[in-house]
Amino acid sequence: MQKFSLSHLFRPEILSLNAYKVADASGFIKLDAMENPYQWSEEINHQWLLSLQDCSLNRYPDPSAGELNARLKQVNQIPDEFSILLGNGSDEIIQMLLMGLAEKSHVLSVEPSFVMYKQISLSLGLNYHSVPLQTEDFAIDLNAMLQAIQALQPAIIFLAYPNNPTANLFSTDALKQILRASSGLVVIDEAYAPFANASFLNELAHYENLLVMRTLSKLGLAGLRLGFIAGHSEIIEQLDKIRLPYNINILTQKSALFALSQLNLFTEQAQLICTQRGWLLEQLNHLNGIIAYPSAANFILFRTPVGQADKIFAGLKQQGILIKNLSPQAGLLQDCLRVTVGKPEENQAFLSALIQSLNEMPHFFKA
Amino acid sequence: MQKFSLSHLFRPEILSLNAYKVADASGFIKLDAMENPYQWSEEINHQWLLSLQDCSLNRYPDPSAGELNARLKQVNQIPDEFSILLGNGSDEIIQMLLMGLAEKSHVLSVEPSFVMYKQISLSLGLNYHSVPLQTEDFAIDLNAMLQAIQALQPAIIFLAYPNNPTANLFSTDALKQILRASSGLVVIDEAYAPFANASFLNELAHYENLLVMRTLSKLGLAGLRLGFIAGHSEIIEQLDKIRLPYNINILTQKSALFALSQLNLFTEQAQLICTQRGWLLEQLNHLNGIIAYPSAANFILFRTPVGQADKIFAGLKQQGILIKNLSPQAGLLQDCLRVTVGKPEENQAFLSALIQSLNEMPHFFKA
Repeated sequence: MQKFSLSHLFRPEILSLNAYKVADASGFIKLDAMENPYQWSEEINHQWLLSLQDCSLNRYPDPSAGELNARLKQVNQIPDEFSILLGNGSDEIIQMLLMGLAEKSHVLSVEPSFVMYKQISLSLGLNYHSVPLQTEDFAIDLNAMLQAIQALQPAIIFLAYPNNPTANLFSTDALKQILRASSGLVVIDEAYAPFANASFLNELAHYENLLVMRTLSKLGLAGLRLGFIAGHSEIIEQLDKIRLPYNINILTQKSALFALSQLNLFTEQAQLICTQRGWLLEQLNHLNGIIAYPSAANFILFRTPVGQADKIFAGLKQQGILIKNLSPQAGLLQDCLRVTVGKPEENQAFLSALIQSLNEMPHFFKA
Repeated sequence: MQKFSLSHLFRPEILSLNAYKVADASGFIKLDAMENPYQWSEEINHQWLLSLQDCSLNRYPDPSAGELNARLKQVNQIPDEFSILLGNGSDEIIQMLLMGLAEKSHVLSVEPSFVMYKQISLSLGLNYHSVPLQTEDFAIDLNAMLQAIQALQPAIIFLAYPNNPTANLFSTDALKQILRASSGLVVIDEAYAPFANASFLNELAHYENLLVMRTLSKLGLAGLRLGFIAGHSEIIEQLDKIRLPYNINILTQKSALFALSQLNLFTEQAQLICTQRGWLLEQLNHLNGIIAYPSAANFILFRTPVGQADKIFAGLKQQGILIKNLSPQAGLLQDCLRVTVGKPEENQAFLSALIQSLNEMPHFFKA
């Protein structure tokens, strides 16, 4: 064999990439990953398992996931003339969107936003760009975006609505101007829609380059890994060629169908979470040294006293509370932490632990 | 908005690609997709559902699927110094392998072989090449392969062992020469290993560019979509960066763990299938006009009288038997059909229907 060398085979971007790291959460009150904290009752769990008992694990799943596809369209009130494409979480859909792009295509988003837009773009050798959000309120910088669109002619623009990790909804007017200015696809990522009371699904008819992406993860089914993207059929048809034929397994298909028959349950849980979000936001903003930002999602971004985010994060962890430390990402996120809204008792435990951590800092105002 | 045009966004290869088509099998005796025909007993099914009842659908799955990863290594006797990577079926693994390659990389396989090597390569804009197998016995043409390797320096070579759709095992000596001659990765795809009594897993220690890919699909879990690839840790580590962090959902992780606790069951089923394969091969070769090829997999490729494959395929379908018509792929597969080995009564039904179809052809020898 000739000298075998990995560096000749893989893109340099991959060799220099770090694998996506996930914190070990065992034993913690887990408020780091935007999960719905509520598990199903024993009765619902029993009904779910019954719904699985006849599925043929020995057979390939329905490659088009036809029944689930139709039910998702119905539940999300997507008109017949549009199509949807299913993926193993939004992640796989982002990958499908990017895999098919012409070489050296430009991908545009804002900074900070969901990290997978950049990570997957880089791993595919695409040109990823981001326009910084406004410092004070994380609003979109429309002029800078329009300039970037003009200069780069991006094949795809990703905009999370609400945005992760900043939790705000961008101005609909700004997003519409971006849709009009772009000759490429514009993906509005509505992962947090269950908590937002806002959507671009109704705009599909008005913009032929609009795609709206959603997931069942934040609704309460993170373990299932099911996402979908809705758009004009001509676009979905191309993406469907990139989709692996049996990408959604039989258990995901059956379980999602069952879950969609229990939508009231999820709606009630989302309401509970939104109520708790309001409470938690108010409590956080009562603490000296903490600035918590408004949220249209199931998490809250908050700013700690300068240079203290790592310490506070570690202090919370020591008290058994796992949240997300965004400060290492620097830029607008310097000194910022992100907490997922949990059950009332979890939110209370987080708050008490945060106060404790702040109190341990002699040189700051006591909370 | 500027004129929105799909042809500017996606690779031309994708626009011209046809989506992978899957035949509708409802109501048929399904012998088209290399599925294990045996379902679980009520008792095993009950135990499986019990194993799912505590899983937290509201939480993200273990991103590394650590327990399943370790169990797969143990069951497949993969030494500690090697690593494995999990995917949603072999398909997702093939995609990960190809996504990370440097632009315009060359991918090499043989013709005919598993169609997804080519399909995914093309959808990623890679240069796909194949060397024809020998006409008479589908053996690998070693000289032609070595010449292609020399000329193209492929980043990856895919070789299915046994090969699909020809069902034969290539010469181990030829494969070893290919491994030695290649400066890129060589993927030995052992999807049909449960029926083959042959493997390159023991060769991992001898070839640093060897990767061995397996799936639980043919073993009896096609609905789960779980595959893995084993190789040297330095290679797996790079692939792991391309892997989407939560690619294997919680239900797949739990169900595969349960299934691996029932390995005896699958081993017994594989033995039944191998016995039936022997019977079916003999019966087929007793039919005038049919040439059935030896098989190390759970399917049999057979050649029909010239120009009659479509008619026979349609005749079988009319009698409620769905197999795979490979004749449209032309080349070595002209006039060829592929039947998956099913339960004894299914194989008998297929054989009777085939005899019926042959008898309806006045200008051929009666079966």
